[in-house]
Amino acid sequence: MKGAILKINPKAKIVDISHGIAPGDILEASLILQASFPFFPQGTIHLCVVDPGVGSKRRAIVVATPRYTFVGPDNGLFTPIYQRGDFKALEITNRGLFYSPLPSKTFHGRDIFAPVAAHLSRGLAVEKVGHQIKDLVSVEFPSPLVSSREIKGEVIHIDRFGNLITNITKEFFEREVGNSPFEIRIGERGLKSLSRSSADGPKGELLAIWGSWGYLELSVNQVSAQKLLSASKGAKLTIGY
Amino acid sequence: MKGAILKINPKAKIVDISHGIAPGDILEASLILQASFPFFPQGTIHLCVVDPGVGSKRRAIVVATPRYTFVGPDNGLFTPIYQRGDFKALEITNRGLFYSPLPSKTFHGRDIFAPVAAHLSRGLAVEKVGHQIKDLVSVEFPSPLVSSREIKGEVIHIDRFGNLITNITKEFFEREVGNSPFEIRIGERGLKSLSRSSADGPKGELLAIWGSWGYLELSVNQVSAQKLLSASKGAKLTIGY
Amino acid sequence: MKGAILKINPKAKIVDISHGIAPGDILEASLILQASFPFFPQGTIHLCVVDPGVGSKRRAIVVATPRYTFVGPDNGLFTPIYQRGDFKALEITNRGLFYSPLPSKTFHGRDIFAPVAAHLSRGLAVEKVGHQIKDLVSVEFPSPLVSSREIKGEVIHIDRFGNLITNITKEFFEREVGNSPFEIRIGERGLKSLSRSSADGPKGELLAIWGSWGYLELSVNQVSAQKLLSASKGAKLTIGY
Repeated sequence: MKGAILKINPKAKIVDISHGIAPGDILEASLILQASFPFFPQGTIHLCVVDPGVGSKRRAIVVATPRYTFVGPDNGLFTPIYQRGDFKALEITNRGLFYSPLPSKTFHGRDIFAPVAAHLSRGLAVEKVGHQIKDLVSVEFPSPLVSSREIKGEVIHIDRFGNLITNITKEFFEREVGNSPFEIRIGERGLKSLSRSSADGPKGELLAIWGSWGYLELSVNQVSAQKLLSASKGAKLTIGY
Repeated sequence: MKGAILKINPKAKIVDISHGIAPGDILEASLILQASFPFFPQGTIHLCVVDPGVGSKRRAIVVATPRYTFVGPDNGLFTPIYQRGDFKALEITNRGLFYSPLPSKTFHGRDIFAPVAAHLSRGLAVEKVGHQIKDLVSVEFPSPLVSSREIKGEVIHIDRFGNLITNITKEFFEREVGNSPFEIRIGERGLKSLSRSSADGPKGELLAIWGSWGYLELSVNQVSAQKLLSASKGAKLTIGY
Repeated sequence: MKGAILKINPKAKIVDISHGIAPGDILEASLILQASFPFFPQGTIHLCVVDPGVGSKRRAIVVATPRYTFVGPDNGLFTPIYQRGDFKALEITNRGLFYSPLPSKTFHGRDIFAPVAAHLSRGLAVEKVGHQIKDLVSVEFPSPLVSSREIKGEVIHIDRFGNLITNITKEFFEREVGNSPFEIRIGERGLKSLSRSSADGPKGELLAIWGSWGYLELSVNQVSAQKLLSASKGAKLTIGY
């Protein structure tokens, strides 16, 4: 893919965000995209290829916002962009932008997404990639549920330090819990307070913190929370208050 | 190695292809090189350091084709380049191009290959690296065997999605099998047709496809074929027809 | 972090050294830094974020030497720089250099270290980041011990090839052992000579070599020494002479 980009735009500056997303995990990819894209300079083109449906009829798209352009499959990966509004989406149909000569067996990342991103980086107007579309595919974010003063949430991502990132945002927590006393329960553990950072407690102590993605995280000072709790993605937690 | 390159050519644009090759696996490295190099811009210098014989008497070489230059060990890594013809090879003997001052314990990647690649990227003529040689080391690619209407092939690479890449090319298959009915057998599984892509079948179904490297691949929609079949590199398959 | 750098200096050339350091392992990070930084061009800014104390009161610092600048946490990561002398260190306190607008939940790598490094890469004088400090945190390097003609050392790092890197430098070995006959003992194995490289012996033979980091390494031709010896970081070795 990088070769295909540089063939079209030898001056392109290419930055890798992650090669560690679980194969085909669109939700994880959209979370990492959401946590990363706002920190890049205006004009950045985000090229995303988590694409379990490659070769099927899923469309190739470009999504343009006032600050950024996104290129990839129409499989829900760009849901966080749609949720913010103020964007337009186009299906990529202009075959003149594809890798040339097109290999007999097409690899969309290398042969479609990368060349289109490279042409856009040279100033091609997004309107030139194809026609505008409205019926975009979205992924459903697993929202926390609330009933009788209990929030039911889950672990949506585990980072390489073993921190458990949940689907509970600070805004959601503060709106629901307010100033009430609360207890976060996961497995057999309970936590009655939030800490400032994972370095706040003694080594090995389980803590709940607000992570840099804006979500509630379960973290252990210098130890993997994943290992301490034998937790995996999808693990449930509750917050009673 | 990147520091050593940038010391000589601060404007070099460096792209990583893979850091995931099994230690010392020259065949895997040559396959990844073969699948990648043609997609890079003309003039690209491919610097390759899969080098189990580092420190032995194996030579350091530069291989030049009309479009690209390759720098690395003479251990067979560049076999796919030799097979295409139209190249010349030189042994690197010009010590004036090495990292300076040369560390007492030499690391060829950092101290020889990277500086030579950097000098070439600044326009040094390949003739300046040393003298031309002809007796190059090659690796033997495990070709499929044919007898009494049966092809015997094997798995030569497993990618991070668990797809099993075999040593059977589309050209070979079509020449041998033609329009005859066929059955691909691996372990206890049999497949009587080819699919367009790994997303063609229902989740979990084993499929045979032509992969982006040009080889027959065994793939499972959204699941690792490696896990489903408990297969490893070198696993045998047959195609009866 | 890369986005945050490019927002401030779109021309920055960013090189990744390692993303494979064990979480929070400051000693391993300082060893990799020591082995890498001298090979980069003069003027390189080394941005290091192995930071188990993030969010605690540990300071953010810039360390400047005549050739390089280092940005990261004051947790001992830069000990190899302090040991060489000829440096000055400043605590980062100039909030005008931080990521703007500062996210409510700060991630020091992205919000402090990366922007400060980016400003320095544009020519900002190091004096502008804050005030000079002297009481820097160091990590203690596990030095080899010597008693009655025996050196006691240990494995301080295992690379991806399974080579065991020890804490015994060539200088130390030559000063202590001189020309005496010696035996290196690890687990149940003994070695009475040093080899030139890991490719010197037959496949599978354990060898002792001087590695490219300048330390004694235990290595096996084409096999992982870690697996052969079932060794882990911290494993002890002795050299009798």
